[in-house]
Amino acid sequence: MTYSLENGLLDELIEKHRPLCQQGSLPSYIPALTNPQQHLAGISIIDIKGSRYNSGDYLLPFTIQSISKIITLTMAILDQGEDFVFSRVGAEPTEDKFNSILPLEISSAYPPNPMINAGAIVVTSLINGKTSQEKMDRILNFTRKLANNPEISVNEEVFISERRTGNKNISLAYYLKDANVLLGEVEDVLDTYFRHCSISLTASDLANIALVYSQDGKSLTGEQLIPPMVCRQVRTIMAMSGFYDESGRFARRVGIPAKSGVGGGILGVVPNRMGIGFYGPSLNTKGTSIVGFDVLEELIEKLDLSIY
Amino acid sequence: MTYSLENGLLDELIEKHRPLCQQGSLPSYIPALTNPQQHLAGISIIDIKGSRYNSGDYLLPFTIQSISKIITLTMAILDQGEDFVFSRVGAEPTEDKFNSILPLEISSAYPPNPMINAGAIVVTSLINGKTSQEKMDRILNFTRKLANNPEISVNEEVFISERRTGNKNISLAYYLKDANVLLGEVEDVLDTYFRHCSISLTASDLANIALVYSQDGKSLTGEQLIPPMVCRQVRTIMAMSGFYDESGRFARRVGIPAKSGVGGGILGVVPNRMGIGFYGPSLNTKGTSIVGFDVLEELIEKLDLSIY
Amino acid sequence: MTYSLENGLLDELIEKHRPLCQQGSLPSYIPALTNPQQHLAGISIIDIKGSRYNSGDYLLPFTIQSISKIITLTMAILDQGEDFVFSRVGAEPTEDKFNSILPLEISSAYPPNPMINAGAIVVTSLINGKTSQEKMDRILNFTRKLANNPEISVNEEVFISERRTGNKNISLAYYLKDANVLLGEVEDVLDTYFRHCSISLTASDLANIALVYSQDGKSLTGEQLIPPMVCRQVRTIMAMSGFYDESGRFARRVGIPAKSGVGGGILGVVPNRMGIGFYGPSLNTKGTSIVGFDVLEELIEKLDLSIY
Amino acid sequence: MTYSLENGLLDELIEKHRPLCQQGSLPSYIPALTNPQQHLAGISIIDIKGSRYNSGDYLLPFTIQSISKIITLTMAILDQGEDFVFSRVGAEPTEDKFNSILPLEISSAYPPNPMINAGAIVVTSLINGKTSQEKMDRILNFTRKLANNPEISVNEEVFISERRTGNKNISLAYYLKDANVLLGEVEDVLDTYFRHCSISLTASDLANIALVYSQDGKSLTGEQLIPPMVCRQVRTIMAMSGFYDESGRFARRVGIPAKSGVGGGILGVVPNRMGIGFYGPSLNTKGTSIVGFDVLEELIEKLDLSIY
Repeated sequence: MTYSLENGLLDELIEKHRPLCQQGSLPSYIPALTNPQQHLAGISIIDIKGSRYNSGDYLLPFTIQSISKIITLTMAILDQGEDFVFSRVGAEPTEDKFNSILPLEISSAYPPNPMINAGAIVVTSLINGKTSQEKMDRILNFTRKLANNPEISVNEEVFISERRTGNKNISLAYYLKDANVLLGEVEDVLDTYFRHCSISLTASDLANIALVYSQDGKSLTGEQLIPPMVCRQVRTIMAMSGFYDESGRFARRVGIPAKSGVGGGILGVVPNRMGIGFYGPSLNTKGTSIVGFDVLEELIEKLDLSIY
Repeated sequence: MTYSLENGLLDELIEKHRPLCQQGSLPSYIPALTNPQQHLAGISIIDIKGSRYNSGDYLLPFTIQSISKIITLTMAILDQGEDFVFSRVGAEPTEDKFNSILPLEISSAYPPNPMINAGAIVVTSLINGKTSQEKMDRILNFTRKLANNPEISVNEEVFISERRTGNKNISLAYYLKDANVLLGEVEDVLDTYFRHCSISLTASDLANIALVYSQDGKSLTGEQLIPPMVCRQVRTIMAMSGFYDESGRFARRVGIPAKSGVGGGILGVVPNRMGIGFYGPSLNTKGTSIVGFDVLEELIEKLDLSIY
Repeated sequence: MTYSLENGLLDELIEKHRPLCQQGSLPSYIPALTNPQQHLAGISIIDIKGSRYNSGDYLLPFTIQSISKIITLTMAILDQGEDFVFSRVGAEPTEDKFNSILPLEISSAYPPNPMINAGAIVVTSLINGKTSQEKMDRILNFTRKLANNPEISVNEEVFISERRTGNKNISLAYYLKDANVLLGEVEDVLDTYFRHCSISLTASDLANIALVYSQDGKSLTGEQLIPPMVCRQVRTIMAMSGFYDESGRFARRVGIPAKSGVGGGILGVVPNRMGIGFYGPSLNTKGTSIVGFDVLEELIEKLDLSIY
Repeated sequence: MTYSLENGLLDELIEKHRPLCQQGSLPSYIPALTNPQQHLAGISIIDIKGSRYNSGDYLLPFTIQSISKIITLTMAILDQGEDFVFSRVGAEPTEDKFNSILPLEISSAYPPNPMINAGAIVVTSLINGKTSQEKMDRILNFTRKLANNPEISVNEEVFISERRTGNKNISLAYYLKDANVLLGEVEDVLDTYFRHCSISLTASDLANIALVYSQDGKSLTGEQLIPPMVCRQVRTIMAMSGFYDESGRFARRVGIPAKSGVGGGILGVVPNRMGIGFYGPSLNTKGTSIVGFDVLEELIEKLDLSIY
């Protein structure tokens, strides 16, 4: 049997897997994220022909959280060049937790990859901009362009909450500073880091962003926003490390370059085919949307879209 | 400019990158592997139409070493089912070395993935067979079938050498036994493990094996040797962990499911396109053929074959 | 109020703390050690004037287990010199478990101290003797001399049991061999190691041995069995590392050089005062006699014998 | 031959070992500490009869650095009780570096002992005082009392320098905060921590402080400043962990409760005999005064003062 997006497949998947949300939980360590209702779930897909398929809560805003790491990685490569970026941060997946400090002390103070928090903090420091504000303006503008949505902005309440309680990230940043891996002022880098994690958008926005990575840097409107080779680099990093210590499990069960965020979002890229945005705030123990994981697994399998 | 395999591309790449062999070294910890001449290099490709392209030392025999891990993983899944296998070993890449014992003590005694030595030892123990000899006969027969070469056999000299000096692997096996992760008799499992690592074959044989994984389990002769879903599982594991702590670097720079061995071999799979076998005994610091890495990088780029 | 050993203090302490045995457990990983009855408890003290004080099950035999590590350390220093021994093994306490392999991979393949298993295996390999049998004969003879008891012998049943099931120690030995830290044949060293851990003696024997370390190497009969400076070295190592990852807790609460064994024994040394032997097979989570810890704490406090 | 402090022994030792300073180095990570001249060396001893013996630069001021950890540990025990303090920090020595974050992530977020930086930061947070200023006033006053010197004060230049550059300590503090191990405001605790490390005093002051710990809490003037049992606790912790990952080596070669600081100071306690203060800013690789280590080794050996 062949499946297609035409016949209500997304509605079917959302309804089938939504009850899983009860087995997950909301992230307690970010107080402002405990607000959303646990049962929300929505998906948005846009293919390279421009066709859109949506279901559920795909227009509800949430914070991007770690999904912003692929945007800042892209910008850092554009600003500093691939070689320089990967001289400050590795490209190797790690079996440690997303906020682990262990590999920095055991192996090398250069974080193993740009998707774990330590790596993303370093990447944030590499983005051009004279001030934290200027860097953030550039990140926000680039995000709006990628999503083709000039309305996207920062959720200040979430930013303030995380800035005040994100002690593990502060610890990581000072550790990196101590090891001369982090350049610039620690508190400025942290301002930018927490702020770009607090960008608010929808599953529909994520789908648009994903589409750009899917079609080698071309936007919906045909503009070349990112060079093809940079897009491939970012897709590779997503495939290898986008889900931290369940990246291998995601590859095995789903099999596309993707990135999760503890805000409940997942951005998925099917190269040369489509961009996917998902929202479902109930998380599994690794910080991935528990509904999103299973919806994507069945979707990719039914449409035979695995890259492997 | 478009490149193709028709016009001497392989000869060109082998000659261009062969001098790199002087920057690598032969593995000192396996005495019997220090024999081959450092400058050897050869490649063999077979595409799904059956066309063959070869260059250099592609008919010289060498030991398969860790490339056998994908064969034994395939057999363990066929024998025990995917769920059981991945309940005894993880699917997560690790930034630790190929023979590290660290993750077993820090995280879980279940090895993070089946490509590092600890994981491959567990996988070996899961293969059906009443005795070590019977298991090994099955592995050898399956390897011959995959390679379509009934002449393939074990290099007894290498086996004896590794069996006597492979103390780190013996240590890993007893550690796993102590943690109740390894079933069966430790010394029997080690016999089988060291023996399947000592299988002797050529780059041409590797290409044939790779082709089976490339065309979803179908052999050269059209026989379905492995179910498609098992092939995909193995390709995914290769893509995520096939090069140990440089799996990320290999994905970034080359971008296909592949597996290296310290015997100098690399098996590369381009899904639905071709199987690749490489031989070059001079290794980089991670245990990968130093010439092979660069030949594959340029080859995959020129032919635009990255899966990402 | 001043306490003394004259007035039934030992009987009082044994009876008071014996019920604690119900909160401990017997070591499941050494099958032959699960035989003794959990409630046993006995103590034996001999002071430098030769006076003896005993209570409880002080004449019941048990296996010495890790307490033999101080005897083999003494012999290795006598055979190879202090400098050579401490060039193969460190003198630093570690917060890792007694059988941890972690520090060997993280810090240095030279074990941090001679009291953890890895260190004791290395120390065993440093004892003079052409064969495993000759080494063991020397160890047994030295133990008999220290204890002034020619009847002391190996419990063969325990030896066979541990030799067959001690997979973690086998793993450690092969790890050390691989790192070129262990000299000699691995299996021979393991034979000697498991065998000296299986020496069978009583709390009374332990007290005699402790007395030698207490009076700077002089035996009960006035013979100088160990040079004073070697005794001090061994007492120091005991004080720093004798209780693995509860050495600090033992120092804080008890405060004398001592060594525990999972056979239930504790050997305690009060410099220039007395030797103490304890037996109580019910263990706390760190592998120390649970009754012994509290009996010693109260005893040392009441008699004001802490070295700190 | 019997040695005594009467006949110029200290002068002899200082002159003999002073040239060692050339094999050490000044701590580059604390800019303000690179000022002192590397060849300085001085010692001061006061025994329980009140006799004083001095040599070299024993009246030159330097910053106390980590030696303050024993003062703050004493205060925390006095303020909160021994049980509470050791429920927030362990008493186990560790083989990790003085500023390691590793054991917090591998074993437990409760630091293994109060002498490593992580533990000392926690201990600092346990000292009574409504504000950082009030806590610091109490610490300074207590230090003055122990040293019998009301002139002791903070070196503000060193404080400012460390406060600005001590990124590893800031990282540790936020890590502990994140794990709910550190109570109170992180920046306040850090203010107090860096400030008490910047207390300026002399070797002569250290000797006075050491004497208090030597005679079970009694000051020079006969005042009971610390209860005897608290003194013993602190002496035990010093003996077990006072020199970080060379605590074992110090115990083996010297053998008294002592504490080093990267300012070049060493405070040594000979129970019931004498207090020792040493100053020599050239450090070995573990952060201990390189001259001080060897002077103390020979001194303790010649006077036969080891506690073991």
